[in-house]
Amino acid sequence: MKNETYVRILRDMHFKNPVIIEGLPGIGLVGKIAAEHLAREVKAKRIAEIYSPHFPHQVVMRKNGTIRPLRNVLYGYKKQNKEFVILLGDVQAVTSEGQFEITNKMIDYFKQINVKRIYTLGGYGSGRHIDNPRVLGAATHKKLVKEMEKHNVIFGKSKGTIIGAAGMLLGIGKLRGMEGVCLMGETHGAYVDAKSAKAVLSALCSILGIKVNLGKLDERVKIDEISEKEMKKIKEAKESSESLSYIR
Amino acid sequence: MKNETYVRILRDMHFKNPVIIEGLPGIGLVGKIAAEHLAREVKAKRIAEIYSPHFPHQVVMRKNGTIRPLRNVLYGYKKQNKEFVILLGDVQAVTSEGQFEITNKMIDYFKQINVKRIYTLGGYGSGRHIDNPRVLGAATHKKLVKEMEKHNVIFGKSKGTIIGAAGMLLGIGKLRGMEGVCLMGETHGAYVDAKSAKAVLSALCSILGIKVNLGKLDERVKIDEISEKEMKKIKEAKESSESLSYIR
Amino acid sequence: MKNETYVRILRDMHFKNPVIIEGLPGIGLVGKIAAEHLAREVKAKRIAEIYSPHFPHQVVMRKNGTIRPLRNVLYGYKKQNKEFVILLGDVQAVTSEGQFEITNKMIDYFKQINVKRIYTLGGYGSGRHIDNPRVLGAATHKKLVKEMEKHNVIFGKSKGTIIGAAGMLLGIGKLRGMEGVCLMGETHGAYVDAKSAKAVLSALCSILGIKVNLGKLDERVKIDEISEKEMKKIKEAKESSESLSYIR
Amino acid sequence: MKNETYVRILRDMHFKNPVIIEGLPGIGLVGKIAAEHLAREVKAKRIAEIYSPHFPHQVVMRKNGTIRPLRNVLYGYKKQNKEFVILLGDVQAVTSEGQFEITNKMIDYFKQINVKRIYTLGGYGSGRHIDNPRVLGAATHKKLVKEMEKHNVIFGKSKGTIIGAAGMLLGIGKLRGMEGVCLMGETHGAYVDAKSAKAVLSALCSILGIKVNLGKLDERVKIDEISEKEMKKIKEAKESSESLSYIR
Repeated sequence: MKNETYVRILRDMHFKNPVIIEGLPGIGLVGKIAAEHLAREVKAKRIAEIYSPHFPHQVVMRKNGTIRPLRNVLYGYKKQNKEFVILLGDVQAVTSEGQFEITNKMIDYFKQINVKRIYTLGGYGSGRHIDNPRVLGAATHKKLVKEMEKHNVIFGKSKGTIIGAAGMLLGIGKLRGMEGVCLMGETHGAYVDAKSAKAVLSALCSILGIKVNLGKLDERVKIDEISEKEMKKIKEAKESSESLSYIR
Repeated sequence: MKNETYVRILRDMHFKNPVIIEGLPGIGLVGKIAAEHLAREVKAKRIAEIYSPHFPHQVVMRKNGTIRPLRNVLYGYKKQNKEFVILLGDVQAVTSEGQFEITNKMIDYFKQINVKRIYTLGGYGSGRHIDNPRVLGAATHKKLVKEMEKHNVIFGKSKGTIIGAAGMLLGIGKLRGMEGVCLMGETHGAYVDAKSAKAVLSALCSILGIKVNLGKLDERVKIDEISEKEMKKIKEAKESSESLSYIR
Repeated sequence: MKNETYVRILRDMHFKNPVIIEGLPGIGLVGKIAAEHLAREVKAKRIAEIYSPHFPHQVVMRKNGTIRPLRNVLYGYKKQNKEFVILLGDVQAVTSEGQFEITNKMIDYFKQINVKRIYTLGGYGSGRHIDNPRVLGAATHKKLVKEMEKHNVIFGKSKGTIIGAAGMLLGIGKLRGMEGVCLMGETHGAYVDAKSAKAVLSALCSILGIKVNLGKLDERVKIDEISEKEMKKIKEAKESSESLSYIR
Repeated sequence: MKNETYVRILRDMHFKNPVIIEGLPGIGLVGKIAAEHLAREVKAKRIAEIYSPHFPHQVVMRKNGTIRPLRNVLYGYKKQNKEFVILLGDVQAVTSEGQFEITNKMIDYFKQINVKRIYTLGGYGSGRHIDNPRVLGAATHKKLVKEMEKHNVIFGKSKGTIIGAAGMLLGIGKLRGMEGVCLMGETHGAYVDAKSAKAVLSALCSILGIKVNLGKLDERVKIDEISEKEMKKIKEAKESSESLSYIR
């Protein structure tokens, strides 16, 4: 492990043309909950780990007494004509330089396994409680907008910028010849939101043409729920990265 | 797109000796408003885009449902003996290392297209409301001072330092064999100032020997006006970069 | 001394297979006190110094009127079948990039001298006073857990992450083929804790199969005790590096 | 000018063995005032400029309407057997990485011109007003202590660390085979202190065996005096770089 982000490949699944599904921690943990649930339900297999000097300099203590570095993990799934790779992890880089390096390293690997399309999952913070969260979309290319609208994803209603991996994978991906969509579940932003995650995952399943038991998602979140203090940290980090971004 | 700032060339306009006109976001958005108005009025053509890991790790959501990375854009204009390239964009880098890398990459490109002169546009914050903003100047070389004074640009009245791209393009440009002038419209500094932008653009048109309809500038600003909250962010970033700069 | 971390070798002790004992400053200075005491008691010899641009840009003024840069120092010990190298120092890097670079440079050197195992010493902050601090452990590999439990080190009771060198040496060490254990003495976290250091050193001596006079440890700490203000700084730095680390 | 610190050489003075005298901005501006006064009194000649991406991204507006980048400047002096190079400048780098890069680049150049000894000038902040400031010293080597004591420089009375260029030039210089002394005038720390600068320059002149009119120093400071607000910024920057430096 050297002083650059690196992708440590654990298993070659011989994909033909997999899609990426990103669910790193972000607003309301919406993307993370949705993507983790998907990975568990389809029993996706760990295919690669990503380590980076742009992650915090910490190791995680596990219940069995062992440790592991902070990391992102790729899980692969392949069945008949369905192929996807789910990106999960403990953290995102907090600096722009870090985000660029990590995103580029990931896309290098995605190109190796012939990825053409990326779905990024996240929350769209509205600052208010929402009973029936909609799924808002933002795509790399106009033609994807139409395709996604068939699955009840709403375009043109989200404003501002998408911060972090959910945005960078699409932005850099687009510049490097990929296409993609960000699926954002409406959410308050100040707490973990399983309902929003369910809406996002439901839309994604419709897009991918797969079926997943969403019932268990609620249980899981109850167990895993992170504290409000931790959410506050995430929110503050988001806000600080927004400073000086005045887009017209 | 790799982990360095890079200039993505979209179109070769076969310039002989174009001048650069910089209008990135800054104090009162004076330079940005002036340069954007000029680009639209003369129907300048997009010739290159600049992407950088020193810009915030965000992508912009557009009204049509698509996204794009944050970036700077170069617009070219060429007609008879008038040739110029206008530098616009969403953001500037916030760190010194970022500003140096981006400025150097731009100047590499400017040298390729045979640029010899750079005009940077900005606001000169006075902390008070001004009815008839003057245009203050600061030049790379003494001989330019005389030339500019013919166009009612006032020299020797601005104090302190010029922060960001408006300063760096001149400072590094000078070290790399270019000449240039910063045109600063007097402005309060706490709000978007179209009047100051008009004064700056008026001086620039006189210098370039071109005519531009300035009437539409006011309308445009009304539509585009950014919130006070955003201006506050810009101001704070400026202030923070001023710390530890005690020039005698 | 160039712009990278570098290990300046002072003495070649011809080790066969030494273990590393890390005691850099951290929570309650537990690891530092324990490792410094060990180094003095066994009269370990200075074998290498580590300098880094990721340490603060300061030099230390010594009582004799001379200065030295901030640094980490390796002390070697070798007697019959006991071989170890103790890592001490003024500071740790405060950024992730710094921690990664320094840890990797150290491990490069450890590989040269044939290190296979690393012990890192630290405090486990509980926020309350503890009369009989236990020693908690976290290991790179499951097999080490059993081995350490024989020496009354308790596993599976510590939660969250290990921050800084005590964690990174194990995390990166593991990825680079080494094994190791972090020994954490329970401590309040808000003051220097010699009692906790004694518990940690006692466990380490049992593991290493050596005997060390622990009586002098208390005296030493009285003399060296650092101010509460300094502890506060350490604590704040720890806390700030914890932000955005929301591990599930 | 590229993305690294670089020394731009303006004049070759054919030195045999010059000493360096550093006077960059620091506590009470003591070193800066002393070194600037010396440079003006002996009419030292500008021999090199230092530019760095680790300096703030700003250019200075001069009274004559022109600009220049922030920089450090080396002034050379040579007369009979007296040879010295005075280091002055607008700013210091604020990060450790920056300080290391700049210091190393400077020492590369110093080696080229055969420098063996470095004097760094600064203030020693005591937090209280002092009528007759003493000059405290800290040296790279024990033998220098004796030599300097003959000139009423007091050793072993200053505690803690020396921050910034005054420390780094000695620390890295020592590791790279040079010797040097830091001369620190006692000062309050909260305001510009010409009296302390005079004490430091007086000691330096005694050491160098030269005579300089110190009377004009007071006048000069009156004119140039920087605001308290600016001093506060310097102090805060110093304090922030002290965090996490708990040296025993």
